[in-house]
Amino acid sequence: MTLSLAADLLGVYFFAVSGSLMAARREFDIIGSLFLASLVGLGGGVVRDLIINVGVPNSFANPVYLAPVALAALSVYAASTQFLRQTNWLLVADAAGLALFCISGTSRALQHGLHPISAVLLGVTTAVGGGVLRDVVANETPSLFNRHDIYAIPALVGAALTAALWGLGAYNLVTGFVVAASVFVFRIAAHRGGWQAPLSVHARSAAAAVRVSSRRA
Amino acid sequence: MTLSLAADLLGVYFFAVSGSLMAARREFDIIGSLFLASLVGLGGGVVRDLIINVGVPNSFANPVYLAPVALAALSVYAASTQFLRQTNWLLVADAAGLALFCISGTSRALQHGLHPISAVLLGVTTAVGGGVLRDVVANETPSLFNRHDIYAIPALVGAALTAALWGLGAYNLVTGFVVAASVFVFRIAAHRGGWQAPLSVHARSAAAAVRVSSRRA
Amino acid sequence: MTLSLAADLLGVYFFAVSGSLMAARREFDIIGSLFLASLVGLGGGVVRDLIINVGVPNSFANPVYLAPVALAALSVYAASTQFLRQTNWLLVADAAGLALFCISGTSRALQHGLHPISAVLLGVTTAVGGGVLRDVVANETPSLFNRHDIYAIPALVGAALTAALWGLGAYNLVTGFVVAASVFVFRIAAHRGGWQAPLSVHARSAAAAVRVSSRRA
Repeated sequence: MTLSLAADLLGVYFFAVSGSLMAARREFDIIGSLFLASLVGLGGGVVRDLIINVGVPNSFANPVYLAPVALAALSVYAASTQFLRQTNWLLVADAAGLALFCISGTSRALQHGLHPISAVLLGVTTAVGGGVLRDVVANETPSLFNRHDIYAIPALVGAALTAALWGLGAYNLVTGFVVAASVFVFRIAAHRGGWQAPLSVHARSAAAAVRVSSRRA
Repeated sequence: MTLSLAADLLGVYFFAVSGSLMAARREFDIIGSLFLASLVGLGGGVVRDLIINVGVPNSFANPVYLAPVALAALSVYAASTQFLRQTNWLLVADAAGLALFCISGTSRALQHGLHPISAVLLGVTTAVGGGVLRDVVANETPSLFNRHDIYAIPALVGAALTAALWGLGAYNLVTGFVVAASVFVFRIAAHRGGWQAPLSVHARSAAAAVRVSSRRA
Repeated sequence: MTLSLAADLLGVYFFAVSGSLMAARREFDIIGSLFLASLVGLGGGVVRDLIINVGVPNSFANPVYLAPVALAALSVYAASTQFLRQTNWLLVADAAGLALFCISGTSRALQHGLHPISAVLLGVTTAVGGGVLRDVVANETPSLFNRHDIYAIPALVGAALTAALWGLGAYNLVTGFVVAASVFVFRIAAHRGGWQAPLSVHARSAAAAVRVSSRRA
């Protein structure tokens, strides 16, 4: 429970930072930034808790969840221009949120008795949900669907590992954070290395065929 | 219950196919395709189950719901370029999903004691929900709002017929599939025939007036 | 309870009008208009009720909620071109919905025993939710994120005032509508006056730094 709460709050913080950075990039005002931070930080978890059906979602039942959101907006506001220029912090924060939410989402679902397969699906949904909300609301194509990037596979691997550890009775503070760290490293390495997954159809000509036929009356 | 489950699983399959085809059209990778297929196939039903308030939504409580999603992604991957070029399969799959979800959504709401009017609204929401999610996430204007096409009226008619049959005690495997088939034929015919519904204001000049005034400070 | 229901139904009406006007502006057909009206009018409340966890959301449990939606679509359809040209009715209707939903959302959350901080958050979510859904589905950037406009601050002030009045035992028909009226006036004045909130980073150069670094691999 403590691990779950810690992973949750840290995940909220990092996703909220990614939301605030997106707000900065689009020159939103400070309130728009707070809202995008809340949406990205809390959105995935609210969906998760609604689906697990545990009553009022954590982030509304327990106001402590608003602390990491406020802290995230403050961090971005206080960061120096030089610091912000150093690296792609949006990618880093998003990868950290992804890593933490895939373990907390999966373990929370298992705690509430969902089937391991459903728990993995929910873990991945929680992990990618916040980022998809962020990109849809900011009117960008979600990273999830960027063919030149690998986004969901690390989350899928992390959720599956979490479920496996849980099944073996070996899921704890140490193994949980090892899984999260691996997901984070995998995601960053995939991005830096430009790794790609195969197309969703067997050939480019098939994609073209769909495109042409679906534009027809 | 069996009819409901069969209609549900078939509906998930067809909507998931439409999601995979959209993914192919936009050249998403195989994971993006699986996710869009899940979102379109399962999204409408999750919203429906959350609203009916039956505990954990079907698609998470029962992992069998993932089978049609995986099958759909596989179907699209395996399809030959020639087959994909034959017709607008995205339209066909979407119409089939629409038809099946409007009967399964309406009947499920009635089963749980909702008022027939609310059940019709929920049936239409379930039926159009997946497609709207697909189009919003893929950054296209939802077909629902395409003035040169008729999308929601078939679902509305199907949901109303389902509620009427239910009220008369005549809703069963046969009548259910007859309604679904009619919705499908209606939707395809409306698209092929280029049928249009009237504008939402009484004249084009009114639309222009709204446009001008709402752009003013 | 009566105040809550009245504020809710009025809020649904005004948000539904804003949805219908958006539909008119984009030349959607009459069904698209009804759907956008439903989504904007009922969307925020459905999310609120799912989060408060009160069973079937009001708008589905009680078909009376569909009346203001139908009335709204009818009002817009029946309005003369001259009337529509008079002022920015979309802004006015949206501000009225915002004002009413921030008091009804907050008070409903307090009624169900949420912590005042969570109740304020939920009130703001309910108030801005419908408008964000409207803009996202119609493929526009949500007003919430428009830096040249103040949108969420009035809702935040209204929700905080509602929670304060509730805590003091002074929340009733009169004070509730005074708060709603203040929120409405605040929102319109902020828009007309072109008031702006500060940027979400401390300097424009910081925003540029985020933009550059987050486009890098």
